[in-house]
Amino acid sequence: MFSDFSTLEPSGPQRGRMTLAKSNSHESKTPEFEPFKGAQPRAPTTQALSVLGVDMYMTDNKKAHNTSKYKNSNLIVRRNQEFIMIINFNRPLNDQQDNVHLEFMIGDAPDEYKDTYIIVSIGKENRDGNWSGRVIGMQGNEVMVGITTDASCIIGRFRTFVAVITDFGRQRTPRNPDTDFYVLFNPWDPKDVVYMAKDTDRQEYVMNDVGIIYNGDFNNITSRAWNFGQFEKGVLDACLLVLDAGKVPLLYRGNAIEVVRQGSALINSQDDDGVLVGNWSGDYSTGTAPTAWTGSPEILLKYARDGCVPVCFAQCWVFAGVLNTFVRCLGIPGRVISNYCSAHDNTGNLKTDIILDEDGRVNRSRTKDSVWNYHSWNEVYMKRPDLPEKFSGWQVIDCTPQETSDGLYRCGPTSVNAIKEGELSYPFDARFVFAELNSDVVYHQSDKYGNTKIVFVDTTYVGKLLITKRVNSNAYEDITSAYKHPEGSDKDKQAMQMAENRGVPSRNYTKPPEAGVDIELQAGTIKIGDNFKLTLNIKNQTSQTCTLSAIITGCVVYYTGITSSIFKLDNKAATVGPWKTSSVVIDVTASEYMPYRVEQSNLLFVVYGSIEETDKTLSTMRIVSLLPPDLTIKVTGTPRFGRDFMVTVSFQNPFDFILKNIQLRLESPGLITTKMKTYDHIAPGGSLQYTEMITPQHPGKKMLIACLDCPTVRQVTSQLEIFVQ
Amino acid sequence: MFSDFSTLEPSGPQRGRMTLAKSNSHESKTPEFEPFKGAQPRAPTTQALSVLGVDMYMTDNKKAHNTSKYKNSNLIVRRNQEFIMIINFNRPLNDQQDNVHLEFMIGDAPDEYKDTYIIVSIGKENRDGNWSGRVIGMQGNEVMVGITTDASCIIGRFRTFVAVITDFGRQRTPRNPDTDFYVLFNPWDPKDVVYMAKDTDRQEYVMNDVGIIYNGDFNNITSRAWNFGQFEKGVLDACLLVLDAGKVPLLYRGNAIEVVRQGSALINSQDDDGVLVGNWSGDYSTGTAPTAWTGSPEILLKYARDGCVPVCFAQCWVFAGVLNTFVRCLGIPGRVISNYCSAHDNTGNLKTDIILDEDGRVNRSRTKDSVWNYHSWNEVYMKRPDLPEKFSGWQVIDCTPQETSDGLYRCGPTSVNAIKEGELSYPFDARFVFAELNSDVVYHQSDKYGNTKIVFVDTTYVGKLLITKRVNSNAYEDITSAYKHPEGSDKDKQAMQMAENRGVPSRNYTKPPEAGVDIELQAGTIKIGDNFKLTLNIKNQTSQTCTLSAIITGCVVYYTGITSSIFKLDNKAATVGPWKTSSVVIDVTASEYMPYRVEQSNLLFVVYGSIEETDKTLSTMRIVSLLPPDLTIKVTGTPRFGRDFMVTVSFQNPFDFILKNIQLRLESPGLITTKMKTYDHIAPGGSLQYTEMITPQHPGKKMLIACLDCPTVRQVTSQLEIFVQ
Repeated sequence: MFSDFSTLEPSGPQRGRMTLAKSNSHESKTPEFEPFKGAQPRAPTTQALSVLGVDMYMTDNKKAHNTSKYKNSNLIVRRNQEFIMIINFNRPLNDQQDNVHLEFMIGDAPDEYKDTYIIVSIGKENRDGNWSGRVIGMQGNEVMVGITTDASCIIGRFRTFVAVITDFGRQRTPRNPDTDFYVLFNPWDPKDVVYMAKDTDRQEYVMNDVGIIYNGDFNNITSRAWNFGQFEKGVLDACLLVLDAGKVPLLYRGNAIEVVRQGSALINSQDDDGVLVGNWSGDYSTGTAPTAWTGSPEILLKYARDGCVPVCFAQCWVFAGVLNTFVRCLGIPGRVISNYCSAHDNTGNLKTDIILDEDGRVNRSRTKDSVWNYHSWNEVYMKRPDLPEKFSGWQVIDCTPQETSDGLYRCGPTSVNAIKEGELSYPFDARFVFAELNSDVVYHQSDKYGNTKIVFVDTTYVGKLLITKRVNSNAYEDITSAYKHPEGSDKDKQAMQMAENRGVPSRNYTKPPEAGVDIELQAGTIKIGDNFKLTLNIKNQTSQTCTLSAIITGCVVYYTGITSSIFKLDNKAATVGPWKTSSVVIDVTASEYMPYRVEQSNLLFVVYGSIEETDKTLSTMRIVSLLPPDLTIKVTGTPRFGRDFMVTVSFQNPFDFILKNIQLRLESPGLITTKMKTYDHIAPGGSLQYTEMITPQHPGKKMLIACLDCPTVRQVTSQLEIFVQ
Repeated sequence: MFSDFSTLEPSGPQRGRMTLAKSNSHESKTPEFEPFKGAQPRAPTTQALSVLGVDMYMTDNKKAHNTSKYKNSNLIVRRNQEFIMIINFNRPLNDQQDNVHLEFMIGDAPDEYKDTYIIVSIGKENRDGNWSGRVIGMQGNEVMVGITTDASCIIGRFRTFVAVITDFGRQRTPRNPDTDFYVLFNPWDPKDVVYMAKDTDRQEYVMNDVGIIYNGDFNNITSRAWNFGQFEKGVLDACLLVLDAGKVPLLYRGNAIEVVRQGSALINSQDDDGVLVGNWSGDYSTGTAPTAWTGSPEILLKYARDGCVPVCFAQCWVFAGVLNTFVRCLGIPGRVISNYCSAHDNTGNLKTDIILDEDGRVNRSRTKDSVWNYHSWNEVYMKRPDLPEKFSGWQVIDCTPQETSDGLYRCGPTSVNAIKEGELSYPFDARFVFAELNSDVVYHQSDKYGNTKIVFVDTTYVGKLLITKRVNSNAYEDITSAYKHPEGSDKDKQAMQMAENRGVPSRNYTKPPEAGVDIELQAGTIKIGDNFKLTLNIKNQTSQTCTLSAIITGCVVYYTGITSSIFKLDNKAATVGPWKTSSVVIDVTASEYMPYRVEQSNLLFVVYGSIEETDKTLSTMRIVSLLPPDLTIKVTGTPRFGRDFMVTVSFQNPFDFILKNIQLRLESPGLITTKMKTYDHIAPGGSLQYTEMITPQHPGKKMLIACLDCPTVRQVTSQLEIFVQ
């Protein structure tokens, strides 16, 4: 008697508890006929209704939902916006008598109470539910139906069934993958948390599939184009696969906050075998160098093709580029940010400690904090229903594995407004982002006993500039003021006070007395292999003559600010009269730094000075990023729709050494997928040329992106915008 | 020339980045002599100072620091409170000439900038640092020194060295484990975040090593004693090992918020091979049944002895008991809470959905949410410098693996005050705890087509009562008002509104019209094996006669509320006049439920009723937890310090079936460690007696705790308080 209530016994140690359906790639078996209890199948008394065909009305729906650009053969719709289906029955539908359910299912355990099994009635039955449906019109046996998903609906790939309900059971259409459709976030809809009011913003932050990522250093901002390629064939499936591989429960996938937080964890491979393996070692021989990629689709498609094996290798701009593809692809407005002089404060004390030896040289083994040359992260635009209203808007997310956030490598979303006001209590990771922008650089000097004292504090070095690609332009937009009040303003002080009230350590440490003398290092634009001059400017702001004795340490650094080798030590002295300014020139030759050069060829110069008359001390530092040689893209012929034209990428080796193991990439979203050529070597002074014939399939503005990479010279990139007529 | 600056090259893919020292169990090699650069060792010109001995002044320090109860041969101190060391030199110290450093190190990479290498000067040198030191007195060659750690110091085991600084180098005492000492949180110090003002509170929440955990159900609250045993030999080391095994960076171990959050993750084995494996299956044959334990030391010591292999098995009160030991042991005030009718809302919608079939019976396969009979979690007392001030005080933490919090199985700390006010934005996991207390129970009924509608909503069932052991008493304290404003009050409505403003889904779903009739199930105190009667009270609050037709489903449930088997279905009808109350009796026989009984013998009765005259529907449910048979503890002789007395535990099998594979535990913190006996079987009506001879080593109040456990009868516990003269 009771046996039919005791089915579905859970097993294993978690019996007595329940788990959630997790995957979009698994599906349930859905029977074509489900008899009702107690009903015996028998011959129908009237002509039974049955379904002959279902048309997802692809072209018009995609246009209305802004999803035509996706290279995907299934329907793609956005939340809370009606889409059309046409159902062809064997006879006209009688909506007073017939009972028809449209069933939409996702995952391997569809369940009405988990929003993974949605029923919309179009017949006699009245049904409340989160999704709504209406009959728009009937013509003969065809019924045009409008379906509206709800504004917080799970995003992903749904299966469609049409079920005719009779007294005996539920007769369902067979499983047909052609009627599957994707639901995405909807920045066009005011009820969606990712709503974005201005169309120009949506065109950039959701629809633009190419962008610019800024790099270089604060004094010498450079850039590279990046193919986000969110509409490329297979990319949408790969993005959903990332969520499946990361075991993100379907239930959470309607929540934009969860989707971006999980995305920030899953784009890196740490903890969870996510998409990209971070590597800052300089040795990328077991994969592709971070500097060699030109866009996200190659990476995401490789991850999917290889069965979710992490792709080698990435550094911050690669992580940020792929995460931006992920969010835009799912319909969340996103952009890539670069923060110049970004602190990586691994002690959480909002100080970056530089330790100098007794003689003023940098002590590499004791200097463990670092200031990244630049660091790229992402912003996403969304309401934060979990927070007070003022914290909606742009949110920081960052998938570069720097520090664990609450146990896993991920960061955000954290409200940019909250960072600006020092409101650091709110989730997620506000403190870490705040430190990246607001740390002090503290110079310590140790005596011969190993005891250290603070010799100089620089409160303005970190978080100097934050920029992103401007809407509808390739220039950058300075967004520093979105993150920080002007240094020293009342509001800045209030924000710092608020941060301290929210548990940030106070920075009222004993500072040494001001020297009354400012020093600053200047450099011009310098290419790899150049001899160059650094200028040390000395500004005496006292009424006494000052005699400065300075020690200059020159290190090769990774772009993360971690020092590699020290290649230069220099002593300079200068006497500067009261209220006067003077300068000293430091010569740096290529032969000094070339043997030690790593990676992106950044040099760090640290100056430690003491004033003979007053015994006061002061310090400064400066990153010099050396520019790589040029890469040229040339177009021959006029690019026209359906007609061939030629693209030539050329490069000359300007160095006196052989370049080996060269990779050259060329790609253009919407025009060509990634082309990769390898070259064994280029002799000193030698050159290479690579030509590709292209036949455009769509007119409009396109970006050609090229990149040359080899172990001794990296970040050789170029881009060219063309217009296909 | 530059080679000595390029040492310590990090290697592997993370080169160019740095990592943190993580462990307290690893230590660095510390040389006994470190020469200074450029100095050549030569014969000293005056008699060199050297250290002959270091005395950690154990007894007085431990008394002053409230750590005498720890069975540990090393010094244990609390933060920001001075402790004494006596250093014996070869000659009197000259504090104008001699330079002596006390060095304290923790972990395998002690570093001044990471607070893992602390230097306190007691000679001529003036040194600023987080820890302070002073010379209290000198007598001959002996110097009495006072050392004060800082109020946010890392907790754990530190190594002590005394170093004499000369012109040539640093001469250090050899490594001596006897001078190692532990630093703990300090609830006695107003500057520590865990400060607790009242001494009676500290005596209970920090110093009491035995407690009561409440179980049973709301109508029938039962309890079991638990040996927290935080002072037992090896327990402190085991607690620090939990942090080491969980790779909690030393840097975070001064932060009480981090320590308890990590503790809530690490006491369960999910994600991180933590201490305890959760098991709700009913099959515990590969370990110890959750119901069989009597305290935490046995579990923590087994975990440590087995090299951090998770211990089998636990359910909520075991998790809560061990987590309470962990926090009290480290010096954080803590207590165990029981929440009766605790929702486990695994869809996050603040509803517990009960699905009934067309005929009113519970549909087990579709009912996936559950209401736990009771759920035990922990509270810790601390300031929350990361949050607005009003959220300091008691914080919820919970290590029972219910749902992942931000990717890992853990929960909290979340401010009790914030839960009460519906302020759910703040970290950590406020939403989940809020749902445990504030979910609605929603009864749905499905028609034969599988369509469901809401038939009844119960807003008062969940979170009925929260209790904890009262300070200095074995009675319970009702702390419901700390978590909830009175149901229906203005403040309650404001809190619910605030919760909705912070993103909790609104619960304004379409409720069915009120039936005007209340139903309620009543039961007395019932023992396993009893036949019993349930009374269904019907209160007609309308002016019409009502005819109620009721279907009663009786299920066996786990204490998690998940149903096992349905053992009873019954129909009852009653006619109740206007404004009258009537009742119907439902007979339940032992033969009905005994064959289906699981675990802790909880029965769930769900009533679905409809009123014939109005077609309105109503529901109610009731948990009946059956009491286990008695276990008796008897003392023979008067317990006196240093004298033997006898304890006898006895049990009689009241059932008509054989009990097999019996475990019997007896323990008493401070008196005896866990004694465990096994018995092959006890025949029906048979009995067992176990006698233990005890010789008390300390006078005072002691608790004897006994527990009998076998696969067919669980939760047979008993406790007896005795006084040792």
